[in-house]
Amino acid sequence: MPQIQLDVIDTVVIQTLTKCRVSVKNAKIISDSILFAHRTGKGTHGISRLPIYVKKINNGSLNPTTEFSVVKDRKVVAVLDAENGFGQLAAHKAVEMAIEKAKEFGVGIVGVRNSNNFGTAAYFLNQAAQENFISTIYSNSAPALAPWGGSKAVFGTTPIGYGFPVGEGKAPILLDMATSFAARGKIRLAAKNNEKIPLGWALDQNGNPTEDPNEALKGTLVPIGEHKGAGLSMIVDLFAGLLTGAGFAGDVLNLNTNGEYSRNGHFVMVLNIDFFMSPEEYQLKIEYLISKIKEQQTTNTIKYPGESAFENSKTNSEYVQISDKVVSEINQLLTQLELNISM
Amino acid sequence: MPQIQLDVIDTVVIQTLTKCRVSVKNAKIISDSILFAHRTGKGTHGISRLPIYVKKINNGSLNPTTEFSVVKDRKVVAVLDAENGFGQLAAHKAVEMAIEKAKEFGVGIVGVRNSNNFGTAAYFLNQAAQENFISTIYSNSAPALAPWGGSKAVFGTTPIGYGFPVGEGKAPILLDMATSFAARGKIRLAAKNNEKIPLGWALDQNGNPTEDPNEALKGTLVPIGEHKGAGLSMIVDLFAGLLTGAGFAGDVLNLNTNGEYSRNGHFVMVLNIDFFMSPEEYQLKIEYLISKIKEQQTTNTIKYPGESAFENSKTNSEYVQISDKVVSEINQLLTQLELNISM
Repeated sequence: MPQIQLDVIDTVVIQTLTKCRVSVKNAKIISDSILFAHRTGKGTHGISRLPIYVKKINNGSLNPTTEFSVVKDRKVVAVLDAENGFGQLAAHKAVEMAIEKAKEFGVGIVGVRNSNNFGTAAYFLNQAAQENFISTIYSNSAPALAPWGGSKAVFGTTPIGYGFPVGEGKAPILLDMATSFAARGKIRLAAKNNEKIPLGWALDQNGNPTEDPNEALKGTLVPIGEHKGAGLSMIVDLFAGLLTGAGFAGDVLNLNTNGEYSRNGHFVMVLNIDFFMSPEEYQLKIEYLISKIKEQQTTNTIKYPGESAFENSKTNSEYVQISDKVVSEINQLLTQLELNISM
Repeated sequence: MPQIQLDVIDTVVIQTLTKCRVSVKNAKIISDSILFAHRTGKGTHGISRLPIYVKKINNGSLNPTTEFSVVKDRKVVAVLDAENGFGQLAAHKAVEMAIEKAKEFGVGIVGVRNSNNFGTAAYFLNQAAQENFISTIYSNSAPALAPWGGSKAVFGTTPIGYGFPVGEGKAPILLDMATSFAARGKIRLAAKNNEKIPLGWALDQNGNPTEDPNEALKGTLVPIGEHKGAGLSMIVDLFAGLLTGAGFAGDVLNLNTNGEYSRNGHFVMVLNIDFFMSPEEYQLKIEYLISKIKEQQTTNTIKYPGESAFENSKTNSEYVQISDKVVSEINQLLTQLELNISM
């Protein structure tokens, strides 16, 4: 696989987005989140999505120039309207605002409506952790899971994210998880390779377990812990969708839906550690917790959520691997936009 | 199984607890939470625990007379010290305080340290929902799950709970879930009956999957979604344990540990719907969401989290079934306490 310099990815993303009327400031935030995805090992949430963004801007379903409007702002709780702009910008702004609120009140809550898929939740959890704040981020997404016992997808796999700072130069605890047992991407891959999928990944259109990836793609994903994961998906939809004024209950559209607004919602809560204990006490306790995770286990490789991603990002400090297919798609896009650069 | 009048359970619990120096006011709250557990179908969290409470009070590890102290109270965020009293009273108080904060600020957060197992989380979610507030409740618990990839239990099955009001006379949405795939009680039952347990429920002491319930009881429970559920358990321990000043990272003890404080922690967040939208808009949206869950599914029996429990509580409006074994244990306790009543 081609190794691509991070600088090159950064330039490509920023030039592409600014060509599509995104401001330089905003393009830098989006690019930073894409670089974060690649560096931490989540390339699926990276530059491969750039052609989708450009297509959506061109067909009018992604607003490149919004600066957001504040729907409500009542001290501790606010709601933003992302005006169908980039989810990355909306989530970044929401975390920023929630941090300001948490500085004053100990907690800040910012809901976002009319947004789009924001890429990897870990980026925004990390944003808060870098400033030494604890965060919870829920985002709803297009239907993929049925209510437990049902056969029709209503709720998304909806990232649920939690972030806790661990200290200067150390990997923050970042749990960024979907509510489905397996990602839809793995099922698509199995279909492409004519392979069976394990029972327990997906249900067919009638709600029955299936090993056939093609039936699975027409059906629904199995939530983690069965009714528990299905319940979590619904709860995230309530916080991030219903409560913020975004689409909900099956009305959020996929990122690559043509010509319609996706109407994703996000729910961000930031907590200020100082309202609970001193920084010194927190630091000692976090270190104690991590030592307890690692001690007396049968292997030495036990890592806490976020630790591997952090190590990846150290390794991938200059370049990352991008597939030939994605490189070629991006180069096509650059030519189409008459940008005189390539990957 | 004997059918026992709810009035009788109420009298037995209140008389037992007041005999053990719990105030009448507090005994009524604890009894109400026990009745709620039985009526909603969670009898495992009910009167069978009364002998444990009495034993703990007698051996000095459960404080029957605490009124709690407020460790910190900074407008939106507070921390309570339960002083090793009943978890039910601490959680009830925390929800009450968080509601008052949410009335003024849109959100209220109350952490609790030095508490005990509070029974069923749904009771406290319901407490908030009855007053038309949204709630999130995390509680940590004694070690039962290993960090993912490990073999030693560090984190609990830690109830995670979310509650949303649905409207007058209707079942609130109450998701009250453990982070393990199967409850330890089911494994104990299999051991008693010399039955195998399904693979996927538990790991042995070396971290390997096991079908032997006795090996499972010495090992750890499998978290929902593998690393995801293990991560959720850790996050709950961070919010409810580390952040509140309670025990954490494996230091919380089981309810039936003899003579030592359990040091559970709870984390309660209450949201005020009015800070997001009008009651009318919320009501319409909740009804829309529920209609979307129920429509076009293959069966007609799809219920949202909390709905079956609510229907159970309607059915069980006068009496519930309690096993012979529990009835006899309670009657023994009543004799021992020289209370002139029986079940």
